[in-house]
Amino acid sequence: MTIMRIDASDLQTFSANLFKSIGMQAASADITATSLVEADLRGIYSHGVVRLQPVYMKDIREGRTNPNPHIKVIRDSVSHALLEGDRGQGQLVAHHAMSLAIKKASDAIISVVGVKNSRHFGAAAHWSLMAAEASMIGFCCSNGSLLSAAPFGGAERAQGNMPMSYAIPNGNSNPVVLDMATGEAAMGKVEMARLRGDPIPVGWAIDKQGLDTTDPNMVTAVLPAGGAKGYSIGVVLDVLAGTLTGSLPSAIKGLDTELVGRGNQSGHFIMAINIEGFIPPESFARTMEEHSKILHDVKPRPGFKQVNLPGEIEWLNKEERLSDGIPLQEQELSILEELGSVYGIGPTW
Amino acid sequence: MTIMRIDASDLQTFSANLFKSIGMQAASADITATSLVEADLRGIYSHGVVRLQPVYMKDIREGRTNPNPHIKVIRDSVSHALLEGDRGQGQLVAHHAMSLAIKKASDAIISVVGVKNSRHFGAAAHWSLMAAEASMIGFCCSNGSLLSAAPFGGAERAQGNMPMSYAIPNGNSNPVVLDMATGEAAMGKVEMARLRGDPIPVGWAIDKQGLDTTDPNMVTAVLPAGGAKGYSIGVVLDVLAGTLTGSLPSAIKGLDTELVGRGNQSGHFIMAINIEGFIPPESFARTMEEHSKILHDVKPRPGFKQVNLPGEIEWLNKEERLSDGIPLQEQELSILEELGSVYGIGPTW
Repeated sequence: MTIMRIDASDLQTFSANLFKSIGMQAASADITATSLVEADLRGIYSHGVVRLQPVYMKDIREGRTNPNPHIKVIRDSVSHALLEGDRGQGQLVAHHAMSLAIKKASDAIISVVGVKNSRHFGAAAHWSLMAAEASMIGFCCSNGSLLSAAPFGGAERAQGNMPMSYAIPNGNSNPVVLDMATGEAAMGKVEMARLRGDPIPVGWAIDKQGLDTTDPNMVTAVLPAGGAKGYSIGVVLDVLAGTLTGSLPSAIKGLDTELVGRGNQSGHFIMAINIEGFIPPESFARTMEEHSKILHDVKPRPGFKQVNLPGEIEWLNKEERLSDGIPLQEQELSILEELGSVYGIGPTW
Repeated sequence: MTIMRIDASDLQTFSANLFKSIGMQAASADITATSLVEADLRGIYSHGVVRLQPVYMKDIREGRTNPNPHIKVIRDSVSHALLEGDRGQGQLVAHHAMSLAIKKASDAIISVVGVKNSRHFGAAAHWSLMAAEASMIGFCCSNGSLLSAAPFGGAERAQGNMPMSYAIPNGNSNPVVLDMATGEAAMGKVEMARLRGDPIPVGWAIDKQGLDTTDPNMVTAVLPAGGAKGYSIGVVLDVLAGTLTGSLPSAIKGLDTELVGRGNQSGHFIMAINIEGFIPPESFARTMEEHSKILHDVKPRPGFKQVNLPGEIEWLNKEERLSDGIPLQEQELSILEELGSVYGIGPTW
């Protein structure tokens, strides 16, 4: 397996060119491409440029995703809004929603923007980080689109692998970032083990009898992380992003193949909290610094080099990759090049 | 071990009498007693009347907890407030804070009330449920007071067992309630195993080398639930309830014995979301009903009778105990009776 190092800006230009080739406006193509390349920089490959093919481009081409949505405010107040996403590329809708949430929280201290009728918004951290970059605490979650997880105690799928992210400003250091899904493992990881012929660890997934399995071929559902805890958080996220916004929870969406007009698209719940409404930002930053130092100074367990802040590994990845390029497999690059040739976009590397 | 069944109203009267005997105003004594008895009704014994002795009464008597706090608004807007809790019994402060959050969210749709200088607020679900009873989605969390959990990858304690709760209205059914702490197990459970001479499961806790241990005598820290996930959520809760409110995160509080004047008391973060700002409550209730049915209909795993909604077991507990009484060990009752005799309060059972 040959690994190539591709410059982030080349990958950005290529991705944006692809989106523009299919009619997306230039500024929107940049926003969407940035979300993908940032995910690759941070080491979240599952939400990086691999999404271009087959999902994102195909969904635009076949009309499931709108590359130039007219995002409309359905209801709002000083501290909240509900947006109609016009089946827009999720990154465009989430960018719009978080921009609005930040603006509202400047005055209202806390704000929430719910979104209905959006599409996959990429890595959740990308949107919570917008708030952190505006010196606010950001939160976002989305209703999952594919059922993959069993509820606690259940032998069948009834929940997406629900994503959520918090980002917290951390003075002159990089923001603290929680970016997780509620499943013990992503179905993509089970699939990767299946392709490689590897067993999976006990606790990741169950078979159709609801028994633990290490055979990826036998998997019918992944388990929720932390048992009842991951399951319950997943239900809450399904309600916030799905039910509250009128977009339906994954539990319902995932079982219903006739959901046209019933809010079958993605829903997001996007929140910003203005630190200035509570304590002076300098004081917040000082406590964050002290907190960070305590966590960094904890003696590591055997097998760990050090204790990291949430999101710290991703920041290290980004630093290294901005300097040395994003490592991609030769085969992944071929797929991108082939995709580019379909749309008349040559590789930029 | 003899189990006695005590009527909830008798336990309520006894607990309220105790608080009144030490100078707490009658309405406040009722609020505090209700939080304890509700926890016992719901089967959350760790936050029930066992807290009376030694912690709650002793803390009031020795001046660490103020039974009649003057709760003051430090900063506020239409959608938020920061409260000074005056070292008040945490239940009184949390009750005040959630009442205010609900009032603000009636107009502002979302609201958050931060609290500093409070004390232990009992079971988190009690406050999120106030919002659900007002047809809103409630959230609350608190900075932990005792360090008990290791951060992910760490061999030492640097985090409380951070509590959080969401409550969600569910039409004519009981609200859906997430009520959890971020540790894999409570330190109290480790202590119970130690007293009984039982081993603990692998994955609950580590010894001083940071290795997994099944011997409760060797435990130096509990592990975060779901590894990095529980740890990261714990950091977020520490920031929301501790850092943002000026109360400090557990990581700092727990290591510092000289915290007078540095916000060494409890901080809470209490939020309400008004469903009406997003979709009609009837429509929300219908989707919740459909979602509940899907989860209930999932085939259970071997060893499980059925899939429950988050919080459902606690509602079943409450129903049974309201009818048949709260089961308490004879020894626990003796401790309560002895405590009562100190304050001149006779048992009501």
